[in-house]
Amino acid sequence: MDIPKENFSEWYNEIIKEAHLCDLRYNLKGFVVIPPNAAQVMKTMYRIYEEALEKKGHKPAYFPALIPERNLKAESEHVAGFVPEVFWVTEAGLNKLEEKLAMRPTSETAMYPMYALWINGKSDLPMKIYQSCQVWRHETKATKPFIRTREFYWIEAHDVFATEEEALMQVKEDMETTEEILHQRFGIPFIFFKRPQWDKFAGAVDTYAADTLMPDGKTLQLPSTHMLGQNFSKVFNVKYMDEDGAQKFCWQTCYGPAISRIYASLFSTHGDNKGLVYPFELAPVQVIIIPIMKKDTEAEVRKKVEELKAKLSHLRTEADFSNNTPGFKFNKWELLGVPLRIEIGMRDIQKGACVVARRDTGEKKEVKLEKLEEEIRKEGASLSENLCKKADSWFSGLMHEADSDAELGKAIEKGGFVRIPFCSDQKEGEVCADRLKEKHAVNIRGSRYGDKEKPKGKKCVACGKPASIFLYAARQY
Amino acid sequence: MDIPKENFSEWYNEIIKEAHLCDLRYNLKGFVVIPPNAAQVMKTMYRIYEEALEKKGHKPAYFPALIPERNLKAESEHVAGFVPEVFWVTEAGLNKLEEKLAMRPTSETAMYPMYALWINGKSDLPMKIYQSCQVWRHETKATKPFIRTREFYWIEAHDVFATEEEALMQVKEDMETTEEILHQRFGIPFIFFKRPQWDKFAGAVDTYAADTLMPDGKTLQLPSTHMLGQNFSKVFNVKYMDEDGAQKFCWQTCYGPAISRIYASLFSTHGDNKGLVYPFELAPVQVIIIPIMKKDTEAEVRKKVEELKAKLSHLRTEADFSNNTPGFKFNKWELLGVPLRIEIGMRDIQKGACVVARRDTGEKKEVKLEKLEEEIRKEGASLSENLCKKADSWFSGLMHEADSDAELGKAIEKGGFVRIPFCSDQKEGEVCADRLKEKHAVNIRGSRYGDKEKPKGKKCVACGKPASIFLYAARQY
Repeated sequence: MDIPKENFSEWYNEIIKEAHLCDLRYNLKGFVVIPPNAAQVMKTMYRIYEEALEKKGHKPAYFPALIPERNLKAESEHVAGFVPEVFWVTEAGLNKLEEKLAMRPTSETAMYPMYALWINGKSDLPMKIYQSCQVWRHETKATKPFIRTREFYWIEAHDVFATEEEALMQVKEDMETTEEILHQRFGIPFIFFKRPQWDKFAGAVDTYAADTLMPDGKTLQLPSTHMLGQNFSKVFNVKYMDEDGAQKFCWQTCYGPAISRIYASLFSTHGDNKGLVYPFELAPVQVIIIPIMKKDTEAEVRKKVEELKAKLSHLRTEADFSNNTPGFKFNKWELLGVPLRIEIGMRDIQKGACVVARRDTGEKKEVKLEKLEEEIRKEGASLSENLCKKADSWFSGLMHEADSDAELGKAIEKGGFVRIPFCSDQKEGEVCADRLKEKHAVNIRGSRYGDKEKPKGKKCVACGKPASIFLYAARQY
Repeated sequence: MDIPKENFSEWYNEIIKEAHLCDLRYNLKGFVVIPPNAAQVMKTMYRIYEEALEKKGHKPAYFPALIPERNLKAESEHVAGFVPEVFWVTEAGLNKLEEKLAMRPTSETAMYPMYALWINGKSDLPMKIYQSCQVWRHETKATKPFIRTREFYWIEAHDVFATEEEALMQVKEDMETTEEILHQRFGIPFIFFKRPQWDKFAGAVDTYAADTLMPDGKTLQLPSTHMLGQNFSKVFNVKYMDEDGAQKFCWQTCYGPAISRIYASLFSTHGDNKGLVYPFELAPVQVIIIPIMKKDTEAEVRKKVEELKAKLSHLRTEADFSNNTPGFKFNKWELLGVPLRIEIGMRDIQKGACVVARRDTGEKKEVKLEKLEEEIRKEGASLSENLCKKADSWFSGLMHEADSDAELGKAIEKGGFVRIPFCSDQKEGEVCADRLKEKHAVNIRGSRYGDKEKPKGKKCVACGKPASIFLYAARQY
C-alpha cells in the first residue's frame, strides 16, 4: 500500500485494487464484479448471519426476483420511495411484455401477497422468514464499490405477528442480532438510531438503523430494522383469525443487513497502512505458513511445513512455497489481511519451535510446536478481541455534543456524531434538518435508541425554538 | 397423500401442495415461490455443493445479474441459443436505457471479459471460480415447478486452463463431483451422456450431462459439464503468456448444477405414498420426537422429551407437543419426510427406553436411552444407504436395448433408457433423431460416457445405414 489510511478515500480505492476485492471494469455503470478475495469473506458473513437468524426462529425461503408492476404500486408511500430507482423488464425474448416487471429493489411487495395466503389462524404466527439475495436500485447518487452500487447483496427478514407488542420485541431482537454479529463478531462499532419521521423506510411506521463511522469520520448506515405496523398488512390483506373469531390485521417488521456494505465497513474499520486486517473468524486464509528455506534444508523444511499445515487443517491454513523471498511473502499476506503468520526454518525445527506473528500488532513470538494449535487458537481470539477494542475506543472518541449552530459547525469538523438539541423528529422538523444540511453538510440521523434524556431548557440549534429531543448529526456516505 | 405414486404426475402436484414445497400462486407466469419446507433443503444442497467445489480448488465470486446486450451477442452460437429466451431490462426509474440489459440466462458473457483482464501468465492458471445464483430464461415450453421455471437456482463453475488436457480432466472431475454428491450423498441414480452434436450447450465443443429418470420413466437432465475448448476464449480474448513468450488462448470448461431441479429429482426419487422421504443429511428435521402423554404423566414425559431433544441437539431435532393425537402427528411428520421418529411415553421411560421408527421401511425398534445417540447415527446412515440402493435397483431395471425401430417402440413403453445402434452422433444424425422423435416421442440423449462398445454389423434403427455408435433414447421432461 502506497497510500496511508489517513487519506481514507484514496486508501479505500487503492486497497480494493491491490487486494483485488472488487473489479470496476465490468462494462455497466454502477455494477461491479466481486472476485474471490472479497466473495469468500462475504460468504462467511452470510453464513454467520443466516445461522444467527435461524437460531432465532427465522426460516429461509426464495421469492422471485421479478415483481409485477401492480404489486409494487400497491402501497403508496412504498411506491413513491422505490419506483424512481427501479430497473424495469419490458421484453422477453423477442416480445414486449404486457405488464412491466420490476427487478426487486426490496421484497415486501413480492412476499406479502403470499403471506396473506399462508396465514390463517394464530397458530401460523409468528411467521419469520428471510431470504439471502441480490437487489437492484438504479441509484442516481455517485456509486462507490460495496457502499453504494446499483446491485447489492443482502439478507431481508420479514416477520409477521399477531400483536404490536410482539412486533416491537422483534425490532429489539433485530437490534440485538446486529450487536451480536456486527459488533461482537465482526468488531464493527455502531449506534442504533431511531430515524426521524422524514427519513424512514418507505412505508414504515418507524425505522431503526445501525450507523457506523468510516475512518474519515463520515457515517455509514448498516443494517436497519423497520416497524411496519399494519401499513402493509392492510394493503396486502395479511390477516389472521383471532380466538374470538374476528379477522385481524397482522403486525409486521422487516430487517435488512446489506452484506456488501457491512463488508466495506469491516475492512475500512480494521485495515491499516499495510492493507487488510481481518478478524480471525472472517479471514479467507486464517494462518499462512512461510517456510524459511535454503537449498540444502529445503526438503526437511518443506516436510515440516506440510506437517504443520495438516495439523492446522481445521482452520483455513495455507503454505507459501512460491519462489519469492520471505520479505515479499510477508508483505503479500499482510496486504491480504491474514491474521496469523507462521515462520519456520531449519533453526526453528531444531529447537522444536516456530515463530508466530500477529497481523494486528506485528508482534512475533516463539511457539513450541507441541503448543502450536493452542497458541494459534489463543492468538486468533485475542486478535479479534483487540480489533474490536481498538475500533470501539476510536469510535467513542468521535462522539461530540453541541448546543448551538456555531458549536455544531466546529464539532462536525472533527468527524463523527454530534448530539444536538432539536425541535422535533416529526415531519415538522425536516425544515430544520434541511437548513443544517445546507449550512454544514450534515444529516440528522435521529435519536439514539435508549437515550431517554430530555433537552431541558435547551433550544433547537437550527430554529431556536425550545428543543423537545436530542438528535444526532453527522456527515454521511 | 390421497394419490399413489404410480400416478406420478398427480402425485408430484399433490406433494408440492400438501408438504408446501412450492407455491404457484405468485402472480407472474413461470415464476414460483419456494417456502421454507423446500428452501431449507435447497440451502443444505447448496452448502454441500459449494464445499465440494471449494475442496477441489474452486473459489466463490459474484458477477452482475445484468449483462449488456453487446456482451451476450459476442459469441454467435451462444447468442442464437439464449437470446430467444432472455428477459430484457430496457428502463430504469423513469428513463429508457441506451443499451438493453439481459437478465443473465447463464454467465459466460459476464464472466469471461473479466477473465481476460485477470489472466496474464501461466501462474494465474488454472483459474476455477463458481457462483451460486439465480438465472432467468423465458421458457416457452410448459413450466413445471422445480423442473422447468422461468427463474431457477443453480451454481455455475467456470474454469480456465492452459491446455486442452487439463480442461478435459476438469470435465472428468465435474462428473466425479456429480457422482459423489448426487449419487452417493443424495441417493439419486443417473447416467452421464455425451450429448449428440445437435444437442449440446450453445457455444460448447462437447456437452456431458447427467440424466436421471423420474418415477414415470421419463428422463430429466441434471448437472451438465461443458468442454468449451477455445470457442469463448477466442471471442473474449482470454489468453495467457506461455513460458516461450507467446500469447496463447486458454481452454475453458463450465459446469452447472441446477439446485432447484436436483431437488425435484430428490423428492421424486425417494418419495412414497405417504409423502416425502429425505436422506438423513438433507432433511430439514432429522429427528422428530413424539411424546405419548396422558394427563397425569404429562410433566414427566415432557421433561424427558426436552432432555432427549437437548441430547440430540447436534442434529436437527424437534419435538411435537401440539394438542394433536399421536396418529395425526405420525402422518404429518411422515408427509414431511422426517427420517427418524422417536416415540416415548411413561412406560418407555420406566424401561429406560424409547421407540425409534424409520421413515423408509416403517420399521420400529426399542432403543435403550443410553444408546440413543449411537442408534440414531446408525439408523440415519442406514436409511440414506437404503434409499440409494433402492433407487439404484429401480433405475437399473429401466435400462433396455433395441436393435430395430419396432423393438424401440416396444421398449420405450416400459419407461427408462433404450440403447440403440445409430448412424452418427454428429450433425448428420439429427435427421434420424427427428424421425424417432416424431414417431415414438423419444429424444436421443447421446452416447453413454465410458461406453466403448461399437455396434458391429448393426444398422441405425432410424435410417438403416450401418451404425457407427450406440446412443440412448428416452422420453424426456
